[in-house]
Amino acid sequence: MPIERVKTGIPGLDEILNGGIPRRNVVLLSGGPGTGKTIMSQQYLWNGLQMGEPGVYVALEEHPVQVRINMAQFGWDVRPYEREGTFAIVDAFTGGIGETAKRERYVVRDPTDVGLLIDVLKEAIRDTGAQRVVIDSVSTLYLTKPSVARSVVMMLKRVLSGLGTTSFLVSQVSVTERGFGGPGVEHAADGIIRLDLDEIDGELKRSLIIWKMRGTKHSMRRHPFEITDKGIIIYANKVLRVTRRGVYEETVSSEES
Amino acid sequence: MPIERVKTGIPGLDEILNGGIPRRNVVLLSGGPGTGKTIMSQQYLWNGLQMGEPGVYVALEEHPVQVRINMAQFGWDVRPYEREGTFAIVDAFTGGIGETAKRERYVVRDPTDVGLLIDVLKEAIRDTGAQRVVIDSVSTLYLTKPSVARSVVMMLKRVLSGLGTTSFLVSQVSVTERGFGGPGVEHAADGIIRLDLDEIDGELKRSLIIWKMRGTKHSMRRHPFEITDKGIIIYANKVLRVTRRGVYEETVSSEES
Amino acid sequence: MPIERVKTGIPGLDEILNGGIPRRNVVLLSGGPGTGKTIMSQQYLWNGLQMGEPGVYVALEEHPVQVRINMAQFGWDVRPYEREGTFAIVDAFTGGIGETAKRERYVVRDPTDVGLLIDVLKEAIRDTGAQRVVIDSVSTLYLTKPSVARSVVMMLKRVLSGLGTTSFLVSQVSVTERGFGGPGVEHAADGIIRLDLDEIDGELKRSLIIWKMRGTKHSMRRHPFEITDKGIIIYANKVLRVTRRGVYEETVSSEES
Amino acid sequence: MPIERVKTGIPGLDEILNGGIPRRNVVLLSGGPGTGKTIMSQQYLWNGLQMGEPGVYVALEEHPVQVRINMAQFGWDVRPYEREGTFAIVDAFTGGIGETAKRERYVVRDPTDVGLLIDVLKEAIRDTGAQRVVIDSVSTLYLTKPSVARSVVMMLKRVLSGLGTTSFLVSQVSVTERGFGGPGVEHAADGIIRLDLDEIDGELKRSLIIWKMRGTKHSMRRHPFEITDKGIIIYANKVLRVTRRGVYEETVSSEES
Amino acid sequence: MPIERVKTGIPGLDEILNGGIPRRNVVLLSGGPGTGKTIMSQQYLWNGLQMGEPGVYVALEEHPVQVRINMAQFGWDVRPYEREGTFAIVDAFTGGIGETAKRERYVVRDPTDVGLLIDVLKEAIRDTGAQRVVIDSVSTLYLTKPSVARSVVMMLKRVLSGLGTTSFLVSQVSVTERGFGGPGVEHAADGIIRLDLDEIDGELKRSLIIWKMRGTKHSMRRHPFEITDKGIIIYANKVLRVTRRGVYEETVSSEES
Amino acid sequence: MPIERVKTGIPGLDEILNGGIPRRNVVLLSGGPGTGKTIMSQQYLWNGLQMGEPGVYVALEEHPVQVRINMAQFGWDVRPYEREGTFAIVDAFTGGIGETAKRERYVVRDPTDVGLLIDVLKEAIRDTGAQRVVIDSVSTLYLTKPSVARSVVMMLKRVLSGLGTTSFLVSQVSVTERGFGGPGVEHAADGIIRLDLDEIDGELKRSLIIWKMRGTKHSMRRHPFEITDKGIIIYANKVLRVTRRGVYEETVSSEES
Repeated sequence: MPIERVKTGIPGLDEILNGGIPRRNVVLLSGGPGTGKTIMSQQYLWNGLQMGEPGVYVALEEHPVQVRINMAQFGWDVRPYEREGTFAIVDAFTGGIGETAKRERYVVRDPTDVGLLIDVLKEAIRDTGAQRVVIDSVSTLYLTKPSVARSVVMMLKRVLSGLGTTSFLVSQVSVTERGFGGPGVEHAADGIIRLDLDEIDGELKRSLIIWKMRGTKHSMRRHPFEITDKGIIIYANKVLRVTRRGVYEETVSSEES
Repeated sequence: MPIERVKTGIPGLDEILNGGIPRRNVVLLSGGPGTGKTIMSQQYLWNGLQMGEPGVYVALEEHPVQVRINMAQFGWDVRPYEREGTFAIVDAFTGGIGETAKRERYVVRDPTDVGLLIDVLKEAIRDTGAQRVVIDSVSTLYLTKPSVARSVVMMLKRVLSGLGTTSFLVSQVSVTERGFGGPGVEHAADGIIRLDLDEIDGELKRSLIIWKMRGTKHSMRRHPFEITDKGIIIYANKVLRVTRRGVYEETVSSEES
Repeated sequence: MPIERVKTGIPGLDEILNGGIPRRNVVLLSGGPGTGKTIMSQQYLWNGLQMGEPGVYVALEEHPVQVRINMAQFGWDVRPYEREGTFAIVDAFTGGIGETAKRERYVVRDPTDVGLLIDVLKEAIRDTGAQRVVIDSVSTLYLTKPSVARSVVMMLKRVLSGLGTTSFLVSQVSVTERGFGGPGVEHAADGIIRLDLDEIDGELKRSLIIWKMRGTKHSMRRHPFEITDKGIIIYANKVLRVTRRGVYEETVSSEES
Repeated sequence: MPIERVKTGIPGLDEILNGGIPRRNVVLLSGGPGTGKTIMSQQYLWNGLQMGEPGVYVALEEHPVQVRINMAQFGWDVRPYEREGTFAIVDAFTGGIGETAKRERYVVRDPTDVGLLIDVLKEAIRDTGAQRVVIDSVSTLYLTKPSVARSVVMMLKRVLSGLGTTSFLVSQVSVTERGFGGPGVEHAADGIIRLDLDEIDGELKRSLIIWKMRGTKHSMRRHPFEITDKGIIIYANKVLRVTRRGVYEETVSSEES
Repeated sequence: MPIERVKTGIPGLDEILNGGIPRRNVVLLSGGPGTGKTIMSQQYLWNGLQMGEPGVYVALEEHPVQVRINMAQFGWDVRPYEREGTFAIVDAFTGGIGETAKRERYVVRDPTDVGLLIDVLKEAIRDTGAQRVVIDSVSTLYLTKPSVARSVVMMLKRVLSGLGTTSFLVSQVSVTERGFGGPGVEHAADGIIRLDLDEIDGELKRSLIIWKMRGTKHSMRRHPFEITDKGIIIYANKVLRVTRRGVYEETVSSEES
Repeated sequence: MPIERVKTGIPGLDEILNGGIPRRNVVLLSGGPGTGKTIMSQQYLWNGLQMGEPGVYVALEEHPVQVRINMAQFGWDVRPYEREGTFAIVDAFTGGIGETAKRERYVVRDPTDVGLLIDVLKEAIRDTGAQRVVIDSVSTLYLTKPSVARSVVMMLKRVLSGLGTTSFLVSQVSVTERGFGGPGVEHAADGIIRLDLDEIDGELKRSLIIWKMRGTKHSMRRHPFEITDKGIIIYANKVLRVTRRGVYEETVSSEES
């Protein structure tokens, strides 16, 4: 039985994932500040909408109104899809307070209550028939309570995978951390994509690496990427090498990838 | 009196273990996320079934249904063995909640109760006549209570060794940790196999090393391995060297191994 | 829709920001002691006043009287602007105690009460019609309570962005820290500018790097800067490289910048 | 007055100890998992029995039955000596619970009670006339209470030295620790022998170093050793050097040792 | 308005400070044990007395009697100045207990009470008309309560600056610390002078660096210094460079300084 | 007034101390396990007795009987001096419990009571007219209460210096620590002598460095030393250099020392 895959549509990403993300996988999108986690997760949802796959974005870090503005800056206007019922933003940011918040449909009244968040999320998934879900960020749910990190991720995993969605959990790590969000979190995820922004000899370089992805082969290399005004572009045929002799990008033939 | 050994059947592993794991040993299978611990432990059980040795898998991280699906992706369909009573999955994940969980035979109602888990495990071992046991993962049992780690491992060791099984305890360490799971755990185990996934010059490399194995000589080298769609293959005649002058694989004659 | 930008007027900074800071962004100005955070933030406000953009400075580290003296040393005499109502200092330092404090208009009676601080800040923004705000330093608000850091920054962000201002949050990090102020803070900001003072081979070198800036492209290089008696000058066409072979400044053509 | 020495009988060890361990010394045998601490301590006791010196082994990590099996694998069958009353195992593992435990003569009913353990130990020393004692491991006694480490070691030292025995305290350190068991412990011991297992360029290497030994000169070098099926062999005329230019073993003349 | 400066009179220091310390600055004198912090602070006060500027020394680490003896060893006999009322030692060491303590004029009865210390300090400043103050050490005031460090330094700063004095706060850091005394302290000071004592290739080297100094340009280099029997001499025209190729002192022309 | 000095009589030490330790100094003798702290401190006392200077040794780590035996192994038989009343051992080890302890004259009944220890110490100093005191080790007094370290050292300093003695406080640091015993301790001492035992390329090397010594110039170099059967010998005309190019000993002319 061949594995079912979800195409991310992000240039270069499906190629290094050997065709896409295995369906129902819960993928940790892990990185420091400014690495492009939010953009990549929104691009994943937008591309799904273009392919006819409904999606849900859970906003824990930003006002839903701001989320729409930010996405629009890349040409991703989600409002028509919200109107036709194939896209939804779950507002887990405002607590329903404020004028604009009153116009939101999916509101988590108490964003610190994970059980409540899951109830609203389930409703949004069922209403839209979502096949893609993003939670931005999952770290917010246990920032001050690291001991509950594993159980929170486990609960989300059961719901997201159980309802048949393929999801990105945005995981914020500090700029100096080299892990992906703690042992309880990084072992629970089906996949880990790590985004990096490193200063090398006075220049900032962007790269990503697929650390694990259950159910598929994937590139075992660190790939450079760029954030353009159309979104993220990953160079599947390039590898960023940081060695003792310096840093350089090397073009590799696709057979080697 | 020659030592009794259990053949893992994993390509390359028995060779570097000088013939297999000494019977009744409790082996820590330690590694970071994405290193292949779960796959190796399931392959060990499957190979046992092919050799007529019953086994038990304790699922603490994943739904039993998902465990069966994951194993099947490598061609390891355990359902016939479950039906004939030579294989069992102990469900220490669902707590018996959910439709599919109701169909499981070995369920730990409260997965946080180690005493209860041991009772169900004993029952499964006796019912199946298990000679091989996997606990995936033992870290889950003390993730938020590190002070009990040693006593938990000691309790399991008494039961597993006492009932004559040869077992793998999957130990999750963070991607940046270099130990095997803490002093209380790593000294208590009869053997330690460490799986690694390291980024070297922009490429991910898999390797393992036998850190200790009571009762037998073993390879004192770091061996590269691969995860294929048939499971893990270890290169017993290769050594992965990471030196100041770079990283390279070297083929060694078997006499040296 | 082209992005609206706020010109900082700081020599070199707008150039490496591709024209200025996107309006409504909340920018973390992060650095160790002696790196020039306060000077840069005051220069940003002063330049705004010269361009007809009112501003507010929240003083948490220094007496308002001393703030005026310090600014005057660079030729930035804010008193005329305070009189005409286009500039205000919010005194969150004295608690209203002391003779000179009695003459301040915007006083936070209890500087440990963030809610109160926000109320006074809102009043000052509305009275002046401020388009630029500086909070110096935001770290003071959670120095002894790191667990509230994220919520404090989130609250400020809602107010500052909601009222249409473009703001600098001064973030103090220790001289040996390499992050920007903790995960809760650095992920919440729309932009991060890091100021550094490093001893290299017996010499102190100043440099800055734009780590992230939502809504615009920006230089991906580390730029040297100087503190002169007219304020800060950033060398947009130079890059400070610290490599294994030593440290050197290199002039780059503006196309590359 | 020439110093009295206890011959360990371990090949190479007495040579690098300038003739043996000064009588009544309490020696910390410190090392990570898999370094051979237990084997060396058991070999020390067995060799004593061959020279007519009675001994006591305190089992804190392993069932007494398993201790006898493990020793027998090296050809060290202690049962005849137990029968004739010149060797004893103090069972501080089972708490007297279990069928086989009932047959043990020296049982510590509550292994967490150090006072009780010392009482049973004294009795065993007096009954056997023990001149050699091993406590395996002393770390177990304060694993979860590091603040009592020094007082526990001090108490043991008073008894062991007071009764005229020469003893090994097995000290477990984590694989990544470079100390010997904490300041309270390492300063209290009369001697420290450190066993190491290091991965160097993809190969595991065994070595030991005598860090201190009150009352005698000793080798100031790191010596390679091996674990054979007859026990440990130390290469007194070799030194393991790990330098910036690589690792190598060098043979040194005995005069230099 | 040209900036008013206080001449330290310490050979080389005023030169690298571009003429002296800006009046009213509160300067952190930070360094490990044995770096010469106390000597430099006492030399600063003594030189003030020679220029007709009264001073106060707050003794928190040493008996006032011993302070006078130590200063006298460098030829700095403060007793005549104490008699004429232009110098005072505040005894925050003895608590007024002991025969010799009874003869002290400025005694802090409870040295753990910072409010009380400030009251006595104010009195001493007013009585002497002090223009220079040293607190040796400020670290003592929060050694066991790091969370109050910032507020203690802030309180002192208000008093010292408010009364018009130019002061040195001696800050003790551990020999392995690279900061200046914690974020709350190092950001609050107007200036930071760091004294270092480093072992380089088997030799101890003394050097200092002006990390920051509000209101003036200053040397951006690390300068070697010596402690002679006449006090400290700083080599303003030398720089101590510690590079990958070794350590060396280099003489630089004063224009470059 | 020339400074009064106490000759240690330890070969090489007075030479690198420019003639001896300034009278009344309280010197921290700091080092890891096995570095020779106890031997050096006992040699200092013994040499005093040979020069007619009475002394007191406070035993916190070892039974007084064992202290006498250990000293005798170097030919230092203190019993005649104890009989004539010019030497005393303060027993702060046994608590007065045990047969041999009953014969001790200076016993601290409760070794955890620092006030009591100081009372007994004062009595012993007065009875013997001690000019030299050793406390072995001072670390024991605050091992489990680091927050009281500074106040304990301060109390001892007042007594030891007040009674006119010149003293060594033995400070135990862990083998991996690079400080001298914590900030509260290392800043309080008048002098710091650091003893080191380092493994360099497979060989253990002994060396010491005078980190600080109030009231005198001293060698600023790291000197190799040896422990012989006559005690410690320091090579004042040699320096141990550990550089990037390797480790070597270099003979230096005494003028340079």
